[in-house]
Amino acid sequence: MTARFISLEGGEGVGKSTQARRLADALRARGLDVLLTREPGGSPGAEAIRRLLLEGDANRWSPSAEALLFAAARADHVAKTIDPAVAAGRWVICDRFLDSSRAYQGAAGGIGDAAILGLHQVGSGGRLPDRTLVLALGDADAAARADARDAGCPDRIGGREQGFHTRVAAAFRDFARQEPDRVRLVDASGDEAQVTDRLLAALADLLP
Amino acid sequence: MTARFISLEGGEGVGKSTQARRLADALRARGLDVLLTREPGGSPGAEAIRRLLLEGDANRWSPSAEALLFAAARADHVAKTIDPAVAAGRWVICDRFLDSSRAYQGAAGGIGDAAILGLHQVGSGGRLPDRTLVLALGDADAAARADARDAGCPDRIGGREQGFHTRVAAAFRDFARQEPDRVRLVDASGDEAQVTDRLLAALADLLP
Repeated sequence: MTARFISLEGGEGVGKSTQARRLADALRARGLDVLLTREPGGSPGAEAIRRLLLEGDANRWSPSAEALLFAAARADHVAKTIDPAVAAGRWVICDRFLDSSRAYQGAAGGIGDAAILGLHQVGSGGRLPDRTLVLALGDADAAARADARDAGCPDRIGGREQGFHTRVAAAFRDFARQEPDRVRLVDASGDEAQVTDRLLAALADLLP
Repeated sequence: MTARFISLEGGEGVGKSTQARRLADALRARGLDVLLTREPGGSPGAEAIRRLLLEGDANRWSPSAEALLFAAARADHVAKTIDPAVAAGRWVICDRFLDSSRAYQGAAGGIGDAAILGLHQVGSGGRLPDRTLVLALGDADAAARADARDAGCPDRIGGREQGFHTRVAAAFRDFARQEPDRVRLVDASGDEAQVTDRLLAALADLLP
């Protein structure tokens, strides 16, 4: 049985972190050894870069500097955490990965997809997940969930204006159209258990 | 009279920082408004990245993660410090810039020149100095000067083995051959005043 690298993606407020934990638990219940990790961060060097990215005011970094910092953190995370875990037979579930950079900095931030993929090639040899699950909600539902969670205190990136977040959601839908084998849209509406069941269904062909 | 962006380059121990200060003083003595800056760093965001780059042990970052961090710092430095200064009519002297990334990570670190130039395109729109002055010593002279300066306590990058530094010096010579108009080799031997005079001679066509 081959260990797999699964990324979980989506905009603000779609329930990614909750579902990443639930999916890890569901895979462990099937007897798999699972590493749950998240970006930015997931290794000591990448966590140090995470602090630079998420602290300070919304205009602290230009979109291009931000894209380079995310790619640097990802290079460290892939080399120090993700690849060694998969090589050791562990399933890796990662809360955000490359497609978040493509959606946030590449599409919504105006850097462009080719540039983001170029940075990922330099940093991480172009490493892709075996499957990417995109949690998708209607935009109004997502904004309401994000507002409820942040209670007026969003971080640097969550705090951007609504048009930005609409462009992010559209980009994730584009990726699923462009790479239907790797990237799967999963309906994030309904209760938590229903969403987890949908995620497991979208992994069915990879599971033992 | 057009303000110019000048970078000063070279390996460890060639006297870059001393000569950057002396060159700034010499230009000020001619009535120019000069900003002296250095990489990594030179803006608040870039200084935060500098701390990540120079602290910790020599293997803290992979060559590719290091290249991305340098490019991120440079993007911030160009946007927040260098370009605004030149636009305001100030001459900018920068102790290390892109060619250090090309020599250290691109050539000696194995990342490749095309990758480094690609990162610089994403981060800083490919911004080049108007003139790059490379201070060059024979390898044995440079190692002796670096040892005397560091007195056994080099930083993460200065502490690498001698073969690495020989490859760095060869790369700088290559850049001068490839871009003779922008990149000029300057003999760093002799006393400080002699070297400063050579730097000024290598800028003569740009000076008022």
